[in-house]
Amino acid sequence: MEKKNILDDVMKRRFLNSSFEIYDGIARFYDLGPLGTKLYENIIECWKLLFVKQERSLHIKCPVITPAKVLSASGHLQRFTDVFVKDMQTGEMFRLDHLISDNLNARLSTIDKNNDVFRQYEEIISSLNHLTIQEMQSIVEEYSILSPSTGNQLSKPFERNLMFKTVVGSSDDVYLRPELSQSAFVNFTNYYLYNKGRLPFAVSQIGSAFRNEATTRSSGITRLREFTLAELLYFFDPQQTSHPKYKSVKDVQLNFLSACAQREDKQAENISLEEAVNRNLVNEIMAYFFAKTQLFFREIGVDVSKLRFRQHSSNELAHYAKSCWDAECLTSSGGWLECAGISDRNCFDLENHTRVSKSALTFNRSLTIPVLKKFKEFEFAISMPDELVDRLNDKTNEEKEEIERQLNENGEFYVKDFTEVVCLKRGLVKLVESLKEVDTEQAFAHVIEPSFGIERIMYTVFDHNLRLRKNNERKVYFTFPANISPIKCKVFPLGSNDDHKMLASKVDEYLHSNGIECELDDARLSIGKRYVKSDEIGTPYGVTVDFDSLLEPHSVTLRDRDSTMQVRVPIESLVDILNNLISGKVTFESLTDQFPIFTGQLQSKTTN
Amino acid sequence: MEKKNILDDVMKRRFLNSSFEIYDGIARFYDLGPLGTKLYENIIECWKLLFVKQERSLHIKCPVITPAKVLSASGHLQRFTDVFVKDMQTGEMFRLDHLISDNLNARLSTIDKNNDVFRQYEEIISSLNHLTIQEMQSIVEEYSILSPSTGNQLSKPFERNLMFKTVVGSSDDVYLRPELSQSAFVNFTNYYLYNKGRLPFAVSQIGSAFRNEATTRSSGITRLREFTLAELLYFFDPQQTSHPKYKSVKDVQLNFLSACAQREDKQAENISLEEAVNRNLVNEIMAYFFAKTQLFFREIGVDVSKLRFRQHSSNELAHYAKSCWDAECLTSSGGWLECAGISDRNCFDLENHTRVSKSALTFNRSLTIPVLKKFKEFEFAISMPDELVDRLNDKTNEEKEEIERQLNENGEFYVKDFTEVVCLKRGLVKLVESLKEVDTEQAFAHVIEPSFGIERIMYTVFDHNLRLRKNNERKVYFTFPANISPIKCKVFPLGSNDDHKMLASKVDEYLHSNGIECELDDARLSIGKRYVKSDEIGTPYGVTVDFDSLLEPHSVTLRDRDSTMQVRVPIESLVDILNNLISGKVTFESLTDQFPIFTGQLQSKTTN
Repeated sequence: MEKKNILDDVMKRRFLNSSFEIYDGIARFYDLGPLGTKLYENIIECWKLLFVKQERSLHIKCPVITPAKVLSASGHLQRFTDVFVKDMQTGEMFRLDHLISDNLNARLSTIDKNNDVFRQYEEIISSLNHLTIQEMQSIVEEYSILSPSTGNQLSKPFERNLMFKTVVGSSDDVYLRPELSQSAFVNFTNYYLYNKGRLPFAVSQIGSAFRNEATTRSSGITRLREFTLAELLYFFDPQQTSHPKYKSVKDVQLNFLSACAQREDKQAENISLEEAVNRNLVNEIMAYFFAKTQLFFREIGVDVSKLRFRQHSSNELAHYAKSCWDAECLTSSGGWLECAGISDRNCFDLENHTRVSKSALTFNRSLTIPVLKKFKEFEFAISMPDELVDRLNDKTNEEKEEIERQLNENGEFYVKDFTEVVCLKRGLVKLVESLKEVDTEQAFAHVIEPSFGIERIMYTVFDHNLRLRKNNERKVYFTFPANISPIKCKVFPLGSNDDHKMLASKVDEYLHSNGIECELDDARLSIGKRYVKSDEIGTPYGVTVDFDSLLEPHSVTLRDRDSTMQVRVPIESLVDILNNLISGKVTFESLTDQFPIFTGQLQSKTTN
Repeated sequence: MEKKNILDDVMKRRFLNSSFEIYDGIARFYDLGPLGTKLYENIIECWKLLFVKQERSLHIKCPVITPAKVLSASGHLQRFTDVFVKDMQTGEMFRLDHLISDNLNARLSTIDKNNDVFRQYEEIISSLNHLTIQEMQSIVEEYSILSPSTGNQLSKPFERNLMFKTVVGSSDDVYLRPELSQSAFVNFTNYYLYNKGRLPFAVSQIGSAFRNEATTRSSGITRLREFTLAELLYFFDPQQTSHPKYKSVKDVQLNFLSACAQREDKQAENISLEEAVNRNLVNEIMAYFFAKTQLFFREIGVDVSKLRFRQHSSNELAHYAKSCWDAECLTSSGGWLECAGISDRNCFDLENHTRVSKSALTFNRSLTIPVLKKFKEFEFAISMPDELVDRLNDKTNEEKEEIERQLNENGEFYVKDFTEVVCLKRGLVKLVESLKEVDTEQAFAHVIEPSFGIERIMYTVFDHNLRLRKNNERKVYFTFPANISPIKCKVFPLGSNDDHKMLASKVDEYLHSNGIECELDDARLSIGKRYVKSDEIGTPYGVTVDFDSLLEPHSVTLRDRDSTMQVRVPIESLVDILNNLISGKVTFESLTDQFPIFTGQLQSKTTN
């Protein structure tokens, strides 16, 4: 079996399942079972440690249901689309870039590698990200690509929105959020004030996002319609693009694949962040989050030699992004999988929401040199309440001029946004222009957004940690780091007799009550088969209660998943030993200095 | 200001906000800000400790999008409805029970308490839960209740489904889940096998649920359209209704309000679980989860003297429940708020999904005495592959009889669910009845489901912990238990001079790096005002850096939220002291034995 198939098999048997399977499922939705959920939660915990706790982010929780007007202002209603073609007879839809690449990939397998056509097809496939709709349509025509289901002609390409729509109350159009960040943008002022009116600060959120993906590709959990995003928004003054912690990471090396290198068909370069900043590939803030992303990936068991940061070409950029780099991981299916994106969203969102909502989502920038600024203020010939004067003078110049215009035209103006309606009369109030020295100005914060697709990251963790035993390739194990493993320790009674079972159950309760994530496996299977099942879910350690365990002083064997080596340890030391192993304070190998390597029981009564 | 208004004000200023406020919001959706999110996550953590870790539940994660066929089988499509009436002119909809109770409540305020009519209105309001649609309509007619918005006539009552609908792909009808448990029911067999084919076991899940509520009542976060449920499903053999841990909780006292007591207009009774079990109010499993629910509520700071378990009347039960008890909390608005429900769902869901999906969601019950059972098996006159024989004989008796009927009628039958299509011929195969001794039988597990509404619980935690300072009622504080408080310790520089600020910032970094959830408050406000702000979010402890702190040995004052008392402690002891206080190992009062009570600085240069 190919590695990808072995992986799919063990993932589905042990960690997750297609949702609503007894009703034949629903495409691109998955359930995480008890083990899948633990792995998922451990990955989330690690992300929270690195991106919430360490960054002291303002962590928030907002609804997935989002009003149409918010998503119209953010551009998603108009531009969050994929390009499709339809089967002219059946109406079936295909995502155009996937259709072309699947079609040409199928042709590749029938052509000699040295043939010019082979090279030509390969070039098209690798350039698909950068093509316009018209260019893709020309390819469909040139290569006479037809519907893969029926062989029928295909329609012209069209764009379709990827958001799920529903209705709140009896008539309000809303959508399920396609990303989390809009709720943070519209609340910018709250978080800015929470941070005492200072920049920079980070807002983070973890939650479900929804995209009505349509592709015929089978892709397991790497292209779900409901999936988890972990997002951080770093708000900063665009005049201050340094990052306080950049110095501590500047020597970190990563694989960079710039848009320019892609156009020239070059490979990724392994360079330091400092070099990337000096070459103007990224600024310090971007660089800092690249380092943090790589650190996160390493912590959860991704092989970072298979991680690269790939820059989007201008055709590929989301509508809100000024620039974007994807963190991509090479998986055993042979392709690079986008697992995170670090976008420079500029002030696109804050500016648009300010324009549409008329609420200024700006910050106060202190000016080093005060400037003179023109002001228009109302002056009153009669005494007016201070609050009313302030209310009027807090308006924008445009609003003030409109009031002045109405006063001139109608002779009066009704102020309706005050505690009581007040009528201003022409002649008793006038708009006066003056120059004032100001030492602050209103400006839009810029935003760098690292955004992580948790299910895809989980898939990569599975893929990079899958191993086959050298002596038996049907035995599969996962080398998950202990902190990520769903279960830290399995407890096995060796035989099926009651003494073993009872003591094993006590050991399990003892570890559990001491906070060690463990599980008893007293299934009626040989100990060897139970070890295989434990390895198959990446459990780093196993404790076996055998005949010798029943003798005083009570001891058990402790087995290491990766080396399959065992040592014999006293039960009362078990909690300390396991805690030290799980936290990485000691290695399993070092235990052999202290405890005897287990090769067989003294009181051997069964063999396995 | 009334307590309820004070609470609403401080909740909205400090913890949460109406979603998408800059676009005038969207009714019944809320964002949790940084502090609200921490409180929420701490409550969730506590639930996970008690209901996932301690119960060793199989914790899962499933999508919110659910196919229509699943919700049809579960009865939600037909019966998950509220009863509404419409304004005959404007079409505005009102939830009927709320309409009646709001209308009569308004009348109550104009009537003398001793009047018979008063008593009559009160009776109707308290009986609304138990009335049929027809009975409610009669009340509308009898009391001439009109549209509260316009005074127009109202339509006849009608039922409306509460689920949000959307479309997946281009045509599949799906709904946002109104509860979490359906995904666990349809996966029953997976979890049963994960638990090695044994009962009982628990499956838990935490996540968003969605209900398109329509009521004109303003209700903050207590009636959201998108909200969080924490659910546990306890699957057990209905022949075994004992619970292994019941004995440890049987003496726990709780407030019970049975359906019978409600009919007789009696108050809740405070009795032990043992008495409740003996009186057949609940079984042991229900009783155990009542105790656990009360424990959870106490841990997070709910005043359990204001907690009661109220039984649903038969009119009030959800369509899937055989019986249900709500855990209700008395809040300062005067009403009882449903915060959790513990339902006996019987085998309603498993049976319905089995019937509709044709997948047997059953368990294997061992029989103490083997029984003889009739079997129908195919016998073949010619040799057939074993797999085919097994495939045919694994079918149900009904399916086998159908094959026999077709054989008799058509002379042949095509087996299509085998690796290849096989044609059976009449005469070469016959269905034979035999008696066999069996020692297991297939049966449906029953389910007890404790289900918690997290936002309502959070509201109760706010409500039960709100206090006003005796010396100044405008000073509000929350007595959250330390483990629930969003922030455990604030760090304050006393004055605005740089020495104070720098040392305070160091202390803050020191506590943070030692894992204490702290926050620096160096805003330009007097120390007194900053204490008020810290109390207002329920921060249990505060550290102040003052002039004496700058002298060696460096010390700070440590302030207690509830008593406002301060002690002076060395900086190097701070981590230990705070950890002991937060975990409850020591009380603040006991610190005064060890450290001097702070009344004023030696080096006093400012006063506050």
